[in-house]
Amino acid sequence: PSKGYNWAKIDLIGMTKALEQARKSFTEGGIPIGCSLIAHDGAILGIGHNERIQKKSATLHGEISALENAGRLKASVYRDATIYTTLSPCNMCTGAILLYKIPRVVIGENTTFKGGEDLLKAHSVDVVVLDDEECKDLMAKFIRAKPEEWNEDIGED
Amino acid sequence: PSKGYNWAKIDLIGMTKALEQARKSFTEGGIPIGCSLIAHDGAILGIGHNERIQKKSATLHGEISALENAGRLKASVYRDATIYTTLSPCNMCTGAILLYKIPRVVIGENTTFKGGEDLLKAHSVDVVVLDDEECKDLMAKFIRAKPEEWNEDIGED
Ligand SMILES: [Ca+2]
Ligand SMILES: [Ca+2]
Ligand SMILES: [Zn+2]
Ligand SMILES: [Zn+2]
Repeated sequence: PSKGYNWAKIDLIGMTKALEQARKSFTEGGIPIGCSLIAHDGAILGIGHNERIQKKSATLHGEISALENAGRLKASVYRDATIYTTLSPCNMCTGAILLYKIPRVVIGENTTFKGGEDLLKAHSVDVVVLDDEECKDLMAKFIRAKPEEWNEDIGED
Repeated sequence: PSKGYNWAKIDLIGMTKALEQARKSFTEGGIPIGCSLIAHDGAILGIGHNERIQKKSATLHGEISALENAGRLKASVYRDATIYTTLSPCNMCTGAILLYKIPRVVIGENTTFKGGEDLLKAHSVDVVVLDDEECKDLMAKFIRAKPEEWNEDIGED
């Protein structure tokens, strides 16, 4: 993406919103992964969190949820936006980022799970990993309490 | 997948259901792409169609819709199922198939649009393309009438 943007400011908005969503999901008893889609002028296009438990959903991961909540957008809007996710995106969410050609992905952490980062990079998506402690802590607490729900979310037995 | 199944019977159920969903979406004024997820014992796990227009949805492609309607399933259920889609799956839907390790994908046609078939094959997914005339006709009619809605669905200007 263009270097003319105030990334520090945009990234603070984006990861703050994503983390708020992760905490909200945790409080609801859900998988604590949150996401936001932020335009490069700082506008919040969409926010969301994993809804597997809350909505019995197989597809509303944090990223899909944020994209769904953003509603229908023109192709050009996605191409001037960054998606923030508290955890490295799975294959489905990676594919959603590629579908809409979102040029930049900021990831809270990829220690708990590492998804399609290499595929994103192979498609010239800018991938930033923050290695954030709170993102890791939320997931660690959730997985300790509900390991089977987490495995189901990533298609594992 | 195992060769012991009655593929002709399963595939007839699966593509009939997917095509019904595509026709239904067309009748509703929506993008005519339908999908079904069928267990290898013939059970219908989920059906769905593209909901961009009907639900103002950016993520409910036919495949995501069918997976969402199927609800929460154990990993082992997806691994013994085939997904049927009237059109070649986009990157998001390709990623969803990989997330849940669905071993087999039957595609109505890939002339209108060719999605992530190579990536599926690289992950050892069995990909079958039917080159079905009705699938192609539905899309041709839709795109002639509403080219911009179709472009939006595949992230193009
Ligand atoms: Ca919620
Ligand atoms: Ca409908
Ligand atoms: Zn995901
Ligand atoms: Zn799709």
